[in-house]
Amino acid sequence: MRDKTKKESTKKEKIFLTQSYFKYPLPEEMLKELSEELKDINLYPSGGGYTELRQILAEYVGVKRENILPTNGSDEVIEIVSRAYKGETLIPVPTFSQYEASADRGGLSKILVNCLNDGVYSLNYSAQQLDKASLVWICNPNNPTGTRIPREKIIDIIQRAEGMVVVDECNYEYLGETVIDLISRYENLIISRSFSKNFGLAGLRLGFAISNPQNIKKLAAFGQYFRVNRIAEKAATRVLKYLDYYQEVWGKMKKVRDKFVRQINELGFSAYDSRANFVLVEFKDKKETEGVWEYLKEKGIYTLPGWENEFSGLDDQFIRFTIGKEWEMDKVIEIFTTM
Amino acid sequence: MRDKTKKESTKKEKIFLTQSYFKYPLPEEMLKELSEELKDINLYPSGGGYTELRQILAEYVGVKRENILPTNGSDEVIEIVSRAYKGETLIPVPTFSQYEASADRGGLSKILVNCLNDGVYSLNYSAQQLDKASLVWICNPNNPTGTRIPREKIIDIIQRAEGMVVVDECNYEYLGETVIDLISRYENLIISRSFSKNFGLAGLRLGFAISNPQNIKKLAAFGQYFRVNRIAEKAATRVLKYLDYYQEVWGKMKKVRDKFVRQINELGFSAYDSRANFVLVEFKDKKETEGVWEYLKEKGIYTLPGWENEFSGLDDQFIRFTIGKEWEMDKVIEIFTTM
Repeated sequence: MRDKTKKESTKKEKIFLTQSYFKYPLPEEMLKELSEELKDINLYPSGGGYTELRQILAEYVGVKRENILPTNGSDEVIEIVSRAYKGETLIPVPTFSQYEASADRGGLSKILVNCLNDGVYSLNYSAQQLDKASLVWICNPNNPTGTRIPREKIIDIIQRAEGMVVVDECNYEYLGETVIDLISRYENLIISRSFSKNFGLAGLRLGFAISNPQNIKKLAAFGQYFRVNRIAEKAATRVLKYLDYYQEVWGKMKKVRDKFVRQINELGFSAYDSRANFVLVEFKDKKETEGVWEYLKEKGIYTLPGWENEFSGLDDQFIRFTIGKEWEMDKVIEIFTTM
Repeated sequence: MRDKTKKESTKKEKIFLTQSYFKYPLPEEMLKELSEELKDINLYPSGGGYTELRQILAEYVGVKRENILPTNGSDEVIEIVSRAYKGETLIPVPTFSQYEASADRGGLSKILVNCLNDGVYSLNYSAQQLDKASLVWICNPNNPTGTRIPREKIIDIIQRAEGMVVVDECNYEYLGETVIDLISRYENLIISRSFSKNFGLAGLRLGFAISNPQNIKKLAAFGQYFRVNRIAEKAATRVLKYLDYYQEVWGKMKKVRDKFVRQINELGFSAYDSRANFVLVEFKDKKETEGVWEYLKEKGIYTLPGWENEFSGLDDQFIRFTIGKEWEMDKVIEIFTTM
């Protein structure tokens, strides 16, 4: 354990608010159990079936095993659906860049639909677009705006879309809302989930797709046999035993996030309301944004500006801050006050 | 540690000779070091660059970092090249099934070229086939026959092929021969390697492609950003510190394998000479093969018959035995003598 007190007092300490991973210690007992699994890494993962892993994930989200496809991170859900539903894809920008990246790799044509107007992110697909698209993306909460997409809006899009609608719920654990219950009602719905960000397993890569058994079977045919590694498999059971701990951390993070949004706004900058573990801040123009971003970097605070590759269709006057520990966000605010 | 003595004496002990993984204990110290990495699994892997991992793999095989693309198992090399070189692919059957599986997923048309005649596996591509194909497979040593492909034969194919030639060297560590030195001479050569089978990392999934920087750049564009998990990354450095131990085990395995081949042949069955960690045995016909396979299973010995999905174009009168520990193979021979 590093000395946190020392960390707080050191001026040159770097604070990384770029990637959105779980920033608290993992349960000691969990790590111990996992380390005992290492001696069996000479054995292959469970492979194509992943029966036990699917069962665990199914129980966690309240569906059946045949509704689940585990993947090498939820990035692989994006990759696989982009191979399975070729044609034209609708991407609600600004949003996560991998929808575009996977579309490019799969040779889909992309329609980037601007959904951010006057500081409000709202899905903005036209009837004509929904008629033509083979694949429609909804990121809920949206990355990087942190916006909650209302359930009725999602249902409306599913009903109007001719193609497959994929709802990326990789930040479900912070939002607490899901449309998983709709998979039996609508054939054109796939949900993507992740254990990477919210359970502290980013390094192990564990995502999964949830849909009706026909869709899951189709998706499986587009993925490798041994997609998920053995330690990720074993970790899924382990982390769920510590759900109370994780929920406590998620609760803490949400408080830190809301305080950060409030303080940024009080300082006269413009932070978006967020239901995820990151906050988007809008500045006057590119010049001001560059100034802030550089100044923060000089002070050892690393953040993601709009001109980075992480996002599709994000303009230059934005910076995304992932939420760190309370002292880290306090430090950011302190630096903002000196600008 | 389980009690090996007890294992040997128990009649109902099951022996699995289906999958080809590293069947000896992993170095204790290595596992300890790796378990210390678990506390950081909340962090993402190194991602797209994988700079350090590429450097380690490059040094191991004697090339430069820009010649290396790490992947989620060498199955992902197969997957990625099948997406990068679409068109028609030549598959030298009987061989590993994933060339076909990835071709199917990628929508390539397949030409299964029979290379096994009168007990001899020999690459058998015609000039016309090599003119037309976009992707040509060579598995060296070939799975499941265990056959070594002579270097001059590989060079001949590279020179005659219009498309990309991929040499799957995932069992290099047993064969000890490579064509990596040819990547600077021929533009249409990619080599696939693995740490899964031979370093006991099958559960972690670690493969890599080796080629000239232009080809590597092209392949990278067809793979996800976070393909390789963090523990696999860390394991690559760790295992190479124990190369002496691994070499000792590989040597031991080769002796057990050669003894097994000799004994099977002495019993009047027909075992193929193998340069890998498995041995293919040919029987008279399907009926005899089924009889042997069933009889072995009754005795607790699990093997892969020709009718399983593991191989492309393997007929029904074959069984593949992966090489276990000496006492396991002795047990198999003992059972064969009672047939």
